[in-house]
Amino acid sequence: MRALVFSGAQRVDAIDPADRGLAYGDGVFETMRAHRGDVPWWPVHWQRLLRGAHVLGLPVPDESRARDQALQLLDGSDGVLKLLLTRGAGGRGYAPPVDTKPTWIFSHHPLPAATPADGLAVRWCGTSLSIQPALAGLKHCNRLEQVLARGEWSDTSIHEGLMCSTEGDVVCATAANLFVLHDGRWLTPPVDRCGVAGVCRAWARDALGASEARLAVIDVEAADAVFLCNAVRGILPVARLGARSWRPHPQVAQLQRRLAAEHPAFATEVA
Amino acid sequence: MRALVFSGAQRVDAIDPADRGLAYGDGVFETMRAHRGDVPWWPVHWQRLLRGAHVLGLPVPDESRARDQALQLLDGSDGVLKLLLTRGAGGRGYAPPVDTKPTWIFSHHPLPAATPADGLAVRWCGTSLSIQPALAGLKHCNRLEQVLARGEWSDTSIHEGLMCSTEGDVVCATAANLFVLHDGRWLTPPVDRCGVAGVCRAWARDALGASEARLAVIDVEAADAVFLCNAVRGILPVARLGARSWRPHPQVAQLQRRLAAEHPAFATEVA
Repeated sequence: MRALVFSGAQRVDAIDPADRGLAYGDGVFETMRAHRGDVPWWPVHWQRLLRGAHVLGLPVPDESRARDQALQLLDGSDGVLKLLLTRGAGGRGYAPPVDTKPTWIFSHHPLPAATPADGLAVRWCGTSLSIQPALAGLKHCNRLEQVLARGEWSDTSIHEGLMCSTEGDVVCATAANLFVLHDGRWLTPPVDRCGVAGVCRAWARDALGASEARLAVIDVEAADAVFLCNAVRGILPVARLGARSWRPHPQVAQLQRRLAAEHPAFATEVA
Repeated sequence: MRALVFSGAQRVDAIDPADRGLAYGDGVFETMRAHRGDVPWWPVHWQRLLRGAHVLGLPVPDESRARDQALQLLDGSDGVLKLLLTRGAGGRGYAPPVDTKPTWIFSHHPLPAATPADGLAVRWCGTSLSIQPALAGLKHCNRLEQVLARGEWSDTSIHEGLMCSTEGDVVCATAANLFVLHDGRWLTPPVDRCGVAGVCRAWARDALGASEARLAVIDVEAADAVFLCNAVRGILPVARLGARSWRPHPQVAQLQRRLAAEHPAFATEVA
């Protein structure tokens, strides 16, 4: 992993041990797919970062400077670009200090391992997502629920885990949003009480004319087709969920082709 | 703030930008009252750290080495000692890596400003605490709810804010536990669904023979006496909550004297 660390406008060598990201997860992040040194979905990632920073009251670096640094780090390559933004260094105690310099860190990572073209094998997680409307939708750095859920299995033949809220609604996978096909309609869980408003989720919802709907476990298991999505991996058909299996669905393949046409990083992944 | 940073058994100069504490709040912490270079409640803090690390699957440094470093940092002084323990550096993605070296950071802070001897002025926070039994009780580093709640006011005449769960039960203050006196019985909210199992809470519960009970807002407002407590400030009587006020209560003063007798750092604070 290569990383560039900034405090306010300054490039710095080290992260302050008093950084509030470290103390409280007091920050937000974006995980972006890079393609030949560019980040095709940069504008929507940046908008989501701004929304999260606004809710948390985080200072934000200058966008054009941030983008310049991102492209410099990528240096023409592909892969995954992560941007982590924290409130910066602060004293002890929860009170958010005023006039802090934000810490922002760009890091460049390899692409994740390819998944089977016919679809993912997924499982149900026992760890649930708590209901918190004040933070729902944001890609903030309080992610222990996802860490616990992803730690539930080490079997490499299982690619992802589905999570329910503490009230029993199906919400998402540990690192992806969820869509299901029911009676010819595409549905995805709302993210106003928990879950993350994924960048690829927004794209897929628009592309499919999908509706938001609360889903129970049985709604997923009885669906005609299921896919996961995120901004790094794109559209990921689900082939198996416990004893249930699905054959590749033409509408999911069509959506993959449409994404490939709109976002060049995903073009190479469509057969 | 002075700090010592370690990765596994090694003292290090810098925090890895890939630290999972920074990425996901993937860690736990303890905030301890130091007295003349010692930490009188070290054993109970360490036990809670171990419990949190066990639930999250975090590696833990050697206790005697940690304690040696703590005492070295304190160097005979008073104040607040914070220990932050994270899962250490890891790649991108929620899956907790195996065989990581924990990051642990000791920092030494001044004592917080003294509060009025007759009691705190507190308010209700609008930010609620989500229900998450898997994390409840732990002093983990996912603290955005507390940051948002503490950010609700900047009026320095208000000392603390009380928080309810998303289900409406009163749970705690942003950085303290809560006790109320009702019909001669001391009650404190349970911390098995949200909230932190405070070190001073455990001490006060035992000292008072207090019971755990779900409390509504009206139960606090109608209480005969109210106090907050934490391991840094000890027992903090509440004098005002909105329009409601309480006169100093002899049982709270008695509890403060008892704490002063058992924990030398609090001896100087009792009139």
